[in-house]
Amino acid sequence: MKALTFDVFGTITDWRGTLMREGKDFGIRKKLTVDWARFADAWRAGYAPSMRRVNERELPWKNIDALHRIILEDLLQRFGIIGLEERDKEYLNRIWHRLDPWPDVSSGLQRLRRHFLVAPLSNGNVGLLVDLARHAGIHWDCVLSSELVKRYKPDPAPYLYAAELLGLHPEQVMMVAAHNTDLDAARSVGFRTAFIYRTYEYGPGQSSDLAPNPSVDFAASDLNDLADRLIR
Amino acid sequence: MKALTFDVFGTITDWRGTLMREGKDFGIRKKLTVDWARFADAWRAGYAPSMRRVNERELPWKNIDALHRIILEDLLQRFGIIGLEERDKEYLNRIWHRLDPWPDVSSGLQRLRRHFLVAPLSNGNVGLLVDLARHAGIHWDCVLSSELVKRYKPDPAPYLYAAELLGLHPEQVMMVAAHNTDLDAARSVGFRTAFIYRTYEYGPGQSSDLAPNPSVDFAASDLNDLADRLIR
Repeated sequence: MKALTFDVFGTITDWRGTLMREGKDFGIRKKLTVDWARFADAWRAGYAPSMRRVNERELPWKNIDALHRIILEDLLQRFGIIGLEERDKEYLNRIWHRLDPWPDVSSGLQRLRRHFLVAPLSNGNVGLLVDLARHAGIHWDCVLSSELVKRYKPDPAPYLYAAELLGLHPEQVMMVAAHNTDLDAARSVGFRTAFIYRTYEYGPGQSSDLAPNPSVDFAASDLNDLADRLIR
Repeated sequence: MKALTFDVFGTITDWRGTLMREGKDFGIRKKLTVDWARFADAWRAGYAPSMRRVNERELPWKNIDALHRIILEDLLQRFGIIGLEERDKEYLNRIWHRLDPWPDVSSGLQRLRRHFLVAPLSNGNVGLLVDLARHAGIHWDCVLSSELVKRYKPDPAPYLYAAELLGLHPEQVMMVAAHNTDLDAARSVGFRTAFIYRTYEYGPGQSSDLAPNPSVDFAASDLNDLADRLIR
């Protein structure tokens, strides 16, 4: 095992908590009354279907910044938020570039990086992932993204290309994610897999990804726990 | 200006000094008598022609690891080095993954990274660049490589794709290199340019790239000097 590749939205970063906090601040400044938890959930809910449309070629390739923006335009209507200027919309859309990491990420990744190559393998675009890493103080060895193959996870292409770029066989790479769909897809092309419990990612009522598919190689409560298990 | 992209072989790393040092060590272990300076120069001399053959589609895409290996096989014959095992050849080829940085790189890059995104934009493959950065203790924001477009610099494609991946206009990116060919190509697609004097890159008899093309935006003696000029 040479490299660890990480899902980012949910596994590394708390998108929901950050969207709620930033939304609330934005709402105060703009005198808006919005249920930002519902807003965050609705934004995230638009994500998988829009990527699926790209993978199924219903939509031409668009990166996540562009997909987030399309979903945002629809949400602003649904939540009755009107009259925003272009720069306000762009400000909201860029919240995804400054998501906060979970508390274990900084220390856990530092430990893991001493023994393995570490890289995101995310559906986020490269520019977004670069901004996120700077915001979160994360030191990746390189940034791997579905953008590089213009196909979104769980399509096999991003995983296989990640291994190719690192000059590794898939068996030498472990996908680390809080989502079984991601890990199932990684496993199907030969990656090893580690499940991270992020049981509050979707808020207190989360009903999915509460436990790993039994075929994962490791299941860990957070990245420090993963480091404990991988590094002897 | 948001991002700085760096040439790596020659601008960031001292390929010649490292090849000579590693070659000498290898030669002692294997009881070989080789002029490792000439060997290093000959290896490097095979580099541009082999990339040109890829860009002109005389050769199918091969990454730099593969091109280095092809050149190496020829050099071993020319220098009369026979009987090496596969693992010895691979050991030699991987010297390019552990090139030493010039002495100003670590401190200069740290300063520049506080103000700009920093990334290699190299003909080296991603895996090689990742290994180099770990060896040299360099912290890049992401790793950009000609490998991502399967066309080598000075083809315009790697520069344009680098800007696209960063979500920037070419004018927001500055190419930093010790080679005028690289900077000329970057400028032609809209990048800003900074020349770094590496007048010993090719050894004491260096005759090329002793001075910048007058149209570069900056010329600096090293990365700390560049930081002095760019950061006010």
